[in-house]
Amino acid sequence: MRVRCYIEDIGNHVGETVTLEGWLAGKRSSGKIQFLQVRDGTGFIQCVASRSDVGDESFAELDGLTQESSLRVTGTVAKDDRAPGGYELAADSVEVVHVAEEYPISRKEHGTSFLMDHRHLWIRSSRQFAVLRVRATVIAAARRYFDSRGYTLLDTPILTPAACEGTTTLFATRYFDEDAYLSQSGQLYNEATAMAFGKVYCLGPAFRAEKAKTRRHLIEFWQIEPEIAYADLDEIMDIQEEMVCEIVREVLSKREPELGILERDLEPLRRVEPPFPRIAYGEAVERLKASGQDVEWGVDFGAEHETVLSQQFDRPVLVHRYPRDVKPFYMEDDPDDPAVTLSVDMLAPEGYGEIVGGGQRVEHLDVLERRIAEAGMPREEYAWYLDLRRYGSVPHGGFGMGIERLVTWICGLAHIRETIPFPRMLSRLRP
Amino acid sequence: MRVRCYIEDIGNHVGETVTLEGWLAGKRSSGKIQFLQVRDGTGFIQCVASRSDVGDESFAELDGLTQESSLRVTGTVAKDDRAPGGYELAADSVEVVHVAEEYPISRKEHGTSFLMDHRHLWIRSSRQFAVLRVRATVIAAARRYFDSRGYTLLDTPILTPAACEGTTTLFATRYFDEDAYLSQSGQLYNEATAMAFGKVYCLGPAFRAEKAKTRRHLIEFWQIEPEIAYADLDEIMDIQEEMVCEIVREVLSKREPELGILERDLEPLRRVEPPFPRIAYGEAVERLKASGQDVEWGVDFGAEHETVLSQQFDRPVLVHRYPRDVKPFYMEDDPDDPAVTLSVDMLAPEGYGEIVGGGQRVEHLDVLERRIAEAGMPREEYAWYLDLRRYGSVPHGGFGMGIERLVTWICGLAHIRETIPFPRMLSRLRP
Repeated sequence: MRVRCYIEDIGNHVGETVTLEGWLAGKRSSGKIQFLQVRDGTGFIQCVASRSDVGDESFAELDGLTQESSLRVTGTVAKDDRAPGGYELAADSVEVVHVAEEYPISRKEHGTSFLMDHRHLWIRSSRQFAVLRVRATVIAAARRYFDSRGYTLLDTPILTPAACEGTTTLFATRYFDEDAYLSQSGQLYNEATAMAFGKVYCLGPAFRAEKAKTRRHLIEFWQIEPEIAYADLDEIMDIQEEMVCEIVREVLSKREPELGILERDLEPLRRVEPPFPRIAYGEAVERLKASGQDVEWGVDFGAEHETVLSQQFDRPVLVHRYPRDVKPFYMEDDPDDPAVTLSVDMLAPEGYGEIVGGGQRVEHLDVLERRIAEAGMPREEYAWYLDLRRYGSVPHGGFGMGIERLVTWICGLAHIRETIPFPRMLSRLRP
Repeated sequence: MRVRCYIEDIGNHVGETVTLEGWLAGKRSSGKIQFLQVRDGTGFIQCVASRSDVGDESFAELDGLTQESSLRVTGTVAKDDRAPGGYELAADSVEVVHVAEEYPISRKEHGTSFLMDHRHLWIRSSRQFAVLRVRATVIAAARRYFDSRGYTLLDTPILTPAACEGTTTLFATRYFDEDAYLSQSGQLYNEATAMAFGKVYCLGPAFRAEKAKTRRHLIEFWQIEPEIAYADLDEIMDIQEEMVCEIVREVLSKREPELGILERDLEPLRRVEPPFPRIAYGEAVERLKASGQDVEWGVDFGAEHETVLSQQFDRPVLVHRYPRDVKPFYMEDDPDDPAVTLSVDMLAPEGYGEIVGGGQRVEHLDVLERRIAEAGMPREEYAWYLDLRRYGSVPHGGFGMGIERLVTWICGLAHIRETIPFPRMLSRLRP
């Protein structure tokens, strides 16, 4: 009997005859035997095709078969501890579905620009496969964290009439007879849904038209943003910590083979357990000065500052109570020190810097009205947002976590661009 | 001891003293007792506050308390079969957090436009609460369907250089020095990721700048789109059927109280079990003619046609093999009849019409090149898409399911606009 099977499940079929449907990732030959490296999108496996088993005609066809040709291999599953995945397939027959043209991505070194131009093919390589499987697991784990704790997913709009944090970095479009902008954050809308559903989150794409070329920024990125009614800053920090620990544990338990492909050192990830250190912005400034950084109280931290700070700890660090001037209008003042806000950023260890940003939001109408006026923002566009302080305002807060930044750190990558299937960067809108 | 508790979990605390943090949804008084309807975003409950228990001062404060004021109620949980949720809280103390201004949404009838202008508050009402909780459950169930079957989530880009189905209904933006468009579908990119990961899906927002005012269309909507390498049309239909059944079962098991609030007849939902009827487009045309519809072979079905068709069945119906001319360039021809394509739409019963559309994609390079030329599309923008037919092309297919259309049907709503937190429609970009 012929059973269609995925490589990921092949361990359940030892001794059985199965059919794999996939692509030829690589091949070597030793006279009467062809060793076919086959991938099917769930994993990689070696299929051993001997001339005597598959017949002369099929064997000859395999001999010249090009990389990435598609094929169906039927054979018997064997356990083999020396094989990378632990199993091997002894082929009875091989059906070639399509003979690929000469594949542009070879084993030699290619430049990043070439690989990015061929992103639609590059994602077939084992390294990209590993990174994007980790990404999928990170998103699933983040969602489960919130779903299992009574949060309601409420999707916030992408097309909006006004900006959350200024219009300079916004993509604009014509929405019939008026101007609209692509959202940079669902937070303001989250505050409305949190007042209706208590604990909410959104997960979707966000857009920043920043003319910056860094290894930490994408033009189009995905973020998960929870918002919680009746939560204070301490609770926000607890949730960030618990969520990140749960995600990292899930990746370690489900994606160890992929982290192995990436040659990721697992020790720093295994140390990601509570409690995370929590330091005030003021202490962070002192630490930076002591490390020889040129920094003064009141400035926002740059990538270099975050790198230095995050290298001082063996797990993520929560930096709280940033100065008023470096945080957006909606951040609540610290009642004990109005020069700082009830904000908190989480910096990933190993020099990776900010992965989460959030805090408590302004609760009272008069304060929020003043802030909007001070920021010179169009009051009428925020009338609905002000309404949230008119009708049963409560202490509340939340945060946003950038999916790609988290994946960059977990995978131990040098650049964020590999953490999303089709990255959008300053000079990259294709493919 | 004071335990903070959500209404959803209150059944686990019968006889205990808990604190609810929420809002006043309604209130009535009988002299020495105030009956407070409290909501906290996870449910609604009646809290009974007697003058003798909460004291004269607090009792007087409650007396004039406005709708949607925020409050913390501490009291003892009692089982009460006459109560809507089955429980009641005997209040020991009530702390008013914020006294709401006079709430604009009262129990009287409001026009839709007024309610939509106040969408940020309208979502607090029990009916909107119910619809959006069903939506969250639909999305979670759809994701779990794919996650549990080995599909990899791969997010496709929103900002794209070219259109999937023509540029007339696209939102355009400036992407630094060039033009970009907001994606209407992740499908073409899904085909690339399916060749790399075997079974994939994306879930995100999509945009159609259609100047249409109908009860089935949103400008910004969410869809889930799976794509499967080595799948044929029959398999695509099997997956659609199994997925929709699983989602409906999940909603029935988890959201019966919400469907009750919506007064949804559950019988039609309970009948959503396989097998779904499968009819060819040609048979559908004959059925429409027999029903007195003015229709000829070759036309695309309109909303009226879909309504009439879907009323003929007691569960969703799969209509397959639409004519070449009414389907996009990437649909595979039927090898048995080149006048039709290997396409399939699922129509929801009770007159709701199309909720899923998909099919098998063109497999061979020469056919796809001809189609792109015939459609007058810029070949260079599709070079990467053509590559998928150069390097290990395989039979493959998938589909897209509109989240809001599915929720409209499951909730039994007359209009799609209530199925998304902040709808975007022809004349609605706010709030």
